[in-house]
Order: sequence, then C-alpha cells, then structure tokens
Amino acid sequence: MKNAVYFQSGGPTAVINSSLYGVIKAYCSTDRIDTLYGARHGLEGLIKGDLVEIEKDLSKYEEIQYLNGAILGTARRCLKDISVDDGYEKVLSTLKKHDIGYVFVNGGNDSMDTADKLNKYFLSIGFDCIVIGIPKTIDNDLVNTDHCPGFGSAVKYVVRTTMELFLDINAFNPGRVTVVEIMGRDAGWLAASSIGAKLFNLGPDLIYLPETSFDIERFIEDVKRVYNEKNRVLICVSEALKDRNGKYISMDEKLDSFGHVQLGSVSKYLVSLVEDKLKLKTRNIEFSLVQRCASHLQSKLDREEAIGVGEKAVEYALNNQRGMVSIIRDSDYPYKSHFELVSLSSVANAIKHLPLEYINEAGNYVNDSYLDYIRPFIDEDEINIKSGLLFLKK
Amino acid sequence: MKNAVYFQSGGPTAVINSSLYGVIKAYCSTDRIDTLYGARHGLEGLIKGDLVEIEKDLSKYEEIQYLNGAILGTARRCLKDISVDDGYEKVLSTLKKHDIGYVFVNGGNDSMDTADKLNKYFLSIGFDCIVIGIPKTIDNDLVNTDHCPGFGSAVKYVVRTTMELFLDINAFNPGRVTVVEIMGRDAGWLAASSIGAKLFNLGPDLIYLPETSFDIERFIEDVKRVYNEKNRVLICVSEALKDRNGKYISMDEKLDSFGHVQLGSVSKYLVSLVEDKLKLKTRNIEFSLVQRCASHLQSKLDREEAIGVGEKAVEYALNNQRGMVSIIRDSDYPYKSHFELVSLSSVANAIKHLPLEYINEAGNYVNDSYLDYIRPFIDEDEINIKSGLLFLKK
Repeated sequence: MKNAVYFQSGGPTAVINSSLYGVIKAYCSTDRIDTLYGARHGLEGLIKGDLVEIEKDLSKYEEIQYLNGAILGTARRCLKDISVDDGYEKVLSTLKKHDIGYVFVNGGNDSMDTADKLNKYFLSIGFDCIVIGIPKTIDNDLVNTDHCPGFGSAVKYVVRTTMELFLDINAFNPGRVTVVEIMGRDAGWLAASSIGAKLFNLGPDLIYLPETSFDIERFIEDVKRVYNEKNRVLICVSEALKDRNGKYISMDEKLDSFGHVQLGSVSKYLVSLVEDKLKLKTRNIEFSLVQRCASHLQSKLDREEAIGVGEKAVEYALNNQRGMVSIIRDSDYPYKSHFELVSLSSVANAIKHLPLEYINEAGNYVNDSYLDYIRPFIDEDEINIKSGLLFLKK
Repeated sequence: MKNAVYFQSGGPTAVINSSLYGVIKAYCSTDRIDTLYGARHGLEGLIKGDLVEIEKDLSKYEEIQYLNGAILGTARRCLKDISVDDGYEKVLSTLKKHDIGYVFVNGGNDSMDTADKLNKYFLSIGFDCIVIGIPKTIDNDLVNTDHCPGFGSAVKYVVRTTMELFLDINAFNPGRVTVVEIMGRDAGWLAASSIGAKLFNLGPDLIYLPETSFDIERFIEDVKRVYNEKNRVLICVSEALKDRNGKYISMDEKLDSFGHVQLGSVSKYLVSLVEDKLKLKTRNIEFSLVQRCASHLQSKLDREEAIGVGEKAVEYALNNQRGMVSIIRDSDYPYKSHFELVSLSSVANAIKHLPLEYINEAGNYVNDSYLDYIRPFIDEDEINIKSGLLFLKK
C-alpha cells in the first residue's frame, strides 16, 4: 500500500484549507492509503523532505475547513525546465524515501504547471506515482473549470464590502471620487464581481477591467459625467488595468521572483489623475490581502466545493486517474454542479479571461448577465442589506 | 407639544444608524414629542432647512440598526465662533419654523463642540430648546465616557482581520514585513486593539501608537530583531504616529477644511524605510474606510449600546436635562455598564488619549491589561479562530 502527500502552493485563500480538509476526509474513509503527509511550504517541503504526518482522525481537523491562510505553509516555488532545475530529483528522492504514490497539488496556474511537469517527469522515468491538481485561486483564471475554489469567498467579500463602502461614501454630499482596487493579476473576474452590490442598489458607478484597454481620457470623461449627476463616484477597478499598448496603468512596476510584474497601485494613480484634471476630492482603497483572507465572510458554497475537489482528488487518484479536478456548472437557478477530471497540461499556465460578453460596450461597466455567474456565492444570508437608501439619493 | 430633530455628524460608523434607531424607538414610545425630524447631511440640513419627517412606526426602521454609513447623510460642517458664522441664526430659523424644542447631535469631538455652542447660544438668547449629544466615533477619543459607540465594532473588525492577516502572512517562509495602518486621528485606542488577536495566538509582533514618540532607528532595530527570530514581521500602527518633535511620520501632509492635518500613508513610508535599510520584502495594508464600514462584523454589544445612548438621549431631553450621554463601565467580567449625562462643554474638542499604562516600556507593544478593556467586543462568536497554528510556528 502506498502513501500520499498533499501540498499548498501560491497565494492563500479563504478556503484552501477546506480543500485540505476534503483530502483528509477522503483519506480517513479509505483503507487504500497508508499514511497521508503534508509537505510544508509547498514544493519546497517536497524538495527538502519537510513533511508532516497527518493523523487518520478527521475530528482533529474539523476547524481547518473554516480557516483562511495556508495551514501547512505555502510557497511560490515552482518547477522550471528539467534541464535547469534540480528540484525534480529532490522531489523524487523524498517520494521514494516515504514510499509515496500519490501527490496532491493545491494551487493556481503556476502550481498546475508544476503538477503537469511532475506528472510528465514521473511518466518519462516510469516512476509509479499519480499527480492530481486541486484548483485554487481567488483570481478565477484557471481554464477548463467553471470557477475555482477561493473565488466565491472573495466575491462575497468584494460584494459586501462594496455595499458597505457605498453606504459610507453616499452619506456625504458631495462625496469623494473613490477608487477601489481589487485583485486579479491578469483577469477581471473578481473586480467584475463588484457588480453584485447592484442587486441591493448599492453598486459601483463604474467598473474597469483588464480585458478591455483602459483609456485615461475616457476615464476622466466617465468620472466627470457621474460626478455631475450624483455628486460622488464609486469606482471599482482591477489591479491589472492596461492601456491599448498592453502597458500596465500604475504608479510603479517591479518584477517578482517568477518574472511576473508586481503592480504598483493603479488606484493611487487614478485618484491622482482625478485630483489633477478634475480638482475633486478623492480616496483610493486597496482591498489588498484582506480580500483573500476574509474567512469571516467565507462562502458556504465555496467551502463545500473546496472540500469537494479535495475529496474527489483522492477518489480519482485511487482510480489511477491523472489530471486536475474541475467544477462543471449544471445550472444557475438552482445552482447545481458536478466534478470532472481535466488534463493538467490543458490547465498549466493558461489564463481564462473574463469573456467580453460580460463587459458593456463602453468598457466601463459589467453586464447583468454576469450576475447569474456570481449569484450562487452572494445569495447567502450574511450579505444582505435591504434598506440602505431610505432617506438619501440612490 | 414640541417637535424634535436628530442629525448625524462626522465620519460614519457601523452603528451610528443604531443610535438613530434608538432615538426613533424612544420617540415611538412617548407621547411628549409630536414630530421627529431628521436633518439631512448633519448641521447643513439644519442650516438649510433640509429635514425629513420620521414616521412614528418603529417597524419601518428595524433594519437600520444593522446598517453602516449614515443613513440620513452626514457632513463635516461644524459651528465656528458666533461672530464669524451665520449658521447659528439659520439653525434658529429652521428650529422656529418647525417648532422644535429638542436637538439630538450624534457625533464625535467636533460635533460635541457644535452641540455645546448651540446649547450655549440657545441659553444666551433664551430660546427654549434642549441640545443632547449622542457619542459616536471609532477613534474612541471622547472624554467623560468609558468608550464611544462605533469603537466596539471597529475593534471587532481590527482584531478579526489582524488574525486573518497573521494566518496569510505566516503561511510564507520567509514572510514579508507587513505594516497594517489603522485609523485614529490623535489617539491609539483602535490601533492598540490589534493586541486582541493575541488571545488567539495570532497577534501582531509590534504595535506603534501616537501616544509615544516614534523613533525610526528603534523601529528598524525592532523589525530586524523580530525578523531574525520569525522570518516575518506583522506590525500594526496608528495612522497618526509622531516623532519626538510632534511631527507626523508620513509620506505627505495636507490640511482638510477644518485645518486638521490629512495624513499621508504612514505604512507606505515605514515599508519604504524597511526596504531601504533592511532590504526585506514588504507590504503595507491600510484598513482605510473599511474598518469603520464593516457592518458585517458589527459588534452586538456596540449595537446595543448605540441604541441605548439614542434612547437615553430622548429620556434626558424629556427630563429637561442637557449634555452628552456617556457610557459608564461598572465591571469587565461580566461586562456591565450604565448611562449618565455629562456636560457638553467638558467633552467639546477634548481628546482622550490611550493611557500610557496600556503601552509597554519600549513603546512597541500593548500591555495585556488593555485586553480587559476591549474583550467585551471581541468575546463574540464571529471572531473565534482556535487552531490556526496546527502545523506552523507561532
């Protein structure tokens, strides 16, 4: 009988630990895996042999399904090409040492690329080990899955907090031009979800996304028009806006250790433009890490699906299947979904952008059809505000 | 029989509308006030005569006790000296026109100064009108009250979010030097409340407050020491840190319309220092408006007290008493309190700083005794995280 190892990779979310809980749950109900290890700090744990043994007793882990962060530790370390990366052999050595036949990789695009590389490596050398990807990202930009665990809780945070900000900003007359900056390195899924606040009449006035090119002149015109009408403007933007030449709109740029561009604050830049060109009072707000941390607004559906992809990963592995667990949506109302397995190589490093059909023609708002996509996460009790506009203008 | 008017003033909180609910509740259970008006956008509504009539039917207003913002609208407009401000006469004209004998002012220091000025003006001209102050501020810096409605919910937000950030940052090894910036224009009450996360072993490593002078060299030494031990540093700071000469530590400074200093980002400045001097990866996070907006983490106790001061204000007014409703704490465990009336002039424009006994000798942390002060707000279910450090270092 073989052992198994699970690791967490990339940015934490409100439900990556729920997926770990799902893996433990499946482990506790099978007799076909001897020991389940967790690798600490992602791939680095596998490389260094830093493993922790997980007890076969689900009752000890009940609370972790509700915890944000990455309770085993995470890392940004991924595998490069085998010709330049000695990680492959080190991972192999750890797996052999601990008699591991199943590797569960819980992460986003970069992590699925690493899972894919490990899988191909094992096949090429005839090493008997199954690699399964468990999706996770608040950016929601993995292909071949309807959505990714982590996204739903982040949506719930963005929608509720946008509503609360609306109530705060609307209390002043005139109110400020407020620009809220929302995560999403290359895709606008999460920033677009701010439209959800519209269901409660507390939605933003303008939304800008990386899927359409950002034009500063048009932006200033939009702000001026809304301000003239409402005496305040609430704007939600993706952190990754780009101009027509593909250049990021931001104060400053840096490269991280993967060579990904580390964005400066686009919201800071936009409010400086508004102050400069329209002489209006402004404020910029970055949801920053809090939007991926906010376990106090964890979505029940998101948690259940995160647990589900973890459980399903173990089931596929024990069936000798390889790939990433994917969520297929069967219907919006009532929301129904099921899981399927897709190939790791189809997911690795690919980016699923927000389809343009969800964005209005002017490129400054989101269409109502997107509400069908995100409603399963916001039709939860904690989010409801009904009468926020009893006395003031909408 | 006289009419009454209520207005909201200064920054919105998670429970200022709860105080309005309390006023409406008392209004609905007395036959000694004919009509209750709300002035829109604070004092400006009284000056312009922009009043809205509130119905004598509590069932229509149940939800507003849970809403953040300032549902009647708020403003920063306060009264200046009577020799230069024609607001007094305009307010008087509105009050006479609507036969108003009771004015309820819901706000912080500046607003209590305005309430005090109105009260003295009415007495000086023999106008028969009672002014009652209803305290409100997340900064918690009003004197002559144990604490202020609005503070408790902000504490709950700060504590829970600090815990969540701890879990996120602790997942990386090395983790970044993360500086969290917390509101409080002159007083460190709210920033100090981040110590509450320590109850769950998820507390910050360093806390800096405006009550002690901030020394950049010592700060850099503190960060170096903690980083060497833990490979990450979580720091909570007040937005209003000052150096030994009383100069604000910040990127840039502006004056608002009251002449108060508008602070630039102190956290941005501090992380730039850390990057520069220690060559470490950093992140700065500003809780910004969200910390005063977060009605989804509204404290039950805070809401109940906010309603209570609203109800009590009406009771005092009908007894022909003048002043601000104050919260007196009778015991910590179990928490007990009652209301008293204090004079408006004793509260007006005074600032209650965090007592130095709550700050450690090195000026870089908060003493455990402060936990007794804030626990009534954090001993609520939504905040509890027990097992966040199952696998990683504390």
